[in-house]
Amino acid sequence: MTKPYRIDNLQYANWSEKIFRQMREGGVDAVHVTIAYHENFRETVLNMEQWNRWFEQFPDLIFQGLTGADVRLARKTGRTAIFFGYQNPSPIEDDIGLVEIHHRLGARFMQLSYNNQSLLATGCYEAEDPGITRMGREVIAEMNRVGLVVDMSHSADRSTFEAMEISSRPIAITHANPHSWHPALRNKSDDLMKALAQSGGMMGFSVYPHHLKDKSDCTLESFCQMIADTANVMGIDHIGIGTDLCQDQPDSIVEWMRTGRWTKQMDYGEGSASDAGFPPMPNWFNDNRDFDNIEHGLRAVGLTDTDVGKVMGENWLRFYDENFEAAS
Amino acid sequence: MTKPYRIDNLQYANWSEKIFRQMREGGVDAVHVTIAYHENFRETVLNMEQWNRWFEQFPDLIFQGLTGADVRLARKTGRTAIFFGYQNPSPIEDDIGLVEIHHRLGARFMQLSYNNQSLLATGCYEAEDPGITRMGREVIAEMNRVGLVVDMSHSADRSTFEAMEISSRPIAITHANPHSWHPALRNKSDDLMKALAQSGGMMGFSVYPHHLKDKSDCTLESFCQMIADTANVMGIDHIGIGTDLCQDQPDSIVEWMRTGRWTKQMDYGEGSASDAGFPPMPNWFNDNRDFDNIEHGLRAVGLTDTDVGKVMGENWLRFYDENFEAAS
Repeated sequence: MTKPYRIDNLQYANWSEKIFRQMREGGVDAVHVTIAYHENFRETVLNMEQWNRWFEQFPDLIFQGLTGADVRLARKTGRTAIFFGYQNPSPIEDDIGLVEIHHRLGARFMQLSYNNQSLLATGCYEAEDPGITRMGREVIAEMNRVGLVVDMSHSADRSTFEAMEISSRPIAITHANPHSWHPALRNKSDDLMKALAQSGGMMGFSVYPHHLKDKSDCTLESFCQMIADTANVMGIDHIGIGTDLCQDQPDSIVEWMRTGRWTKQMDYGEGSASDAGFPPMPNWFNDNRDFDNIEHGLRAVGLTDTDVGKVMGENWLRFYDENFEAAS
Repeated sequence: MTKPYRIDNLQYANWSEKIFRQMREGGVDAVHVTIAYHENFRETVLNMEQWNRWFEQFPDLIFQGLTGADVRLARKTGRTAIFFGYQNPSPIEDDIGLVEIHHRLGARFMQLSYNNQSLLATGCYEAEDPGITRMGREVIAEMNRVGLVVDMSHSADRSTFEAMEISSRPIAITHANPHSWHPALRNKSDDLMKALAQSGGMMGFSVYPHHLKDKSDCTLESFCQMIADTANVMGIDHIGIGTDLCQDQPDSIVEWMRTGRWTKQMDYGEGSASDAGFPPMPNWFNDNRDFDNIEHGLRAVGLTDTDVGKVMGENWLRFYDENFEAAS
């Protein structure tokens, strides 16, 4: 049997040669990396410039991925394809013309909001969710046209349902888990996950402790059983991995993620004053070398080889093939 | 005989559907368009956004060209491929990382200076020319690496000779004429043109009246004889067309080209206080429909069909094929 493709559809690590080598050791064919939380256009381009430097420095380990074909090229050449994405629409500022510019530069996922209200949609921490805005409708259509995937991981429910309705192409929840398994604000209801699957969308399961039942103490078995259970809710073809791995980040980064430049106060997001920093990872997933644990865990809860392959990367690869290029 | 490819390697028109249709009427397969004179990064991207809008509005007339293959695609599909270029390094500001970003966005030519001293090289109107700067050497190497062509049309002589020496790939003078034919400051010496050809570079002949013998009264025969004479100096394989067509531009634009934001005074560039605006075009070249005149004129001064084909576009196409992609 050919080894199935292995894709992690969300990381925000403090990347380094060490981590790129761990991606290779872990047999990870592709990673969707967050390169903007609150960055404006120019700041996002600076982050791309840093990646270009890494691509030039480590051509035997990584290269920029633009299409599903690049995941196959990565496998064939023993490297990891890196796909860019944003957790906020801040990189397009107030300019719809920047959607196509970002796609040309390689952006493949963009969240319409990150916790707060944006120009496009409502975030999951707002008290009110008025749904997709006027500009949001325009930007979704433009994202559909060029092949930039709508990601609603950090958005509020009404906005998310409306995004699925408005978008002519499938959307994604790149990193979250079922609310029924762990009732975090960021986790998603069964109704939302069902609608996501019915519209052809994808959900990536997160290993970020605040999204896990029992947080850092979550067992591998519990995580994998949750995946098996979600397959029964959404179907096996609409789920994958999106670890939200924040490896080697200092706690100042989680503060940046949460507060950006929108407040002068501290906001603890999913944490709290007594637990403000990055939470410790579960012992079965610390870095890119640990995907075998998840694969074995999925087999242990009864998934077939074919289904394990779908979850570990084949589903994301199909989604990449269908959604990263201009609409025909 | 197959009709040779027809490429205009420099225009800065006030583009419109009318002009795009004239490109098609004139059988122009590709145009290198200037999209920045003094624009910074963000302003250049705004100009790209305007072009993206035109590509979306007029897909049957134009599309963005990235490689020589796109010129062939243009011919095959009856459209004109539009290649982006800059007449100043202002779009990279002081950031070498922006070279690769611009190349990804489609830039294929960049002048190292425009009349004045830049961070990289000296312009042709400066009193002193200290040659390529420290940053200039770095940026040339980066342009060579990614496939962004060095253009020295508006640069001073020493800087131009040094650029040829430093650059590991051929450079271009996209729009100028021989100084021996018309002694304008912008026109180039035989020595410079010979060195350009010897280094594999290309020169595009300009129809901008300030570059022409007898200016607006220049005859087609004089222009075409100049091309035939230059073929004897440089060789027939290193010359092409770069009209510098500024069709439909208001005189405020020539002021922008000349003064940008670098002075609060008026600078008349190649014009004068009594002749400050755009000069009238010669009667045999007013717009993209007039390339047949040049082609007939070249035959009339004795060029063979093969040589006419080289000048009208085949040479630029070879140059595009060899210089628009990353160095191997």
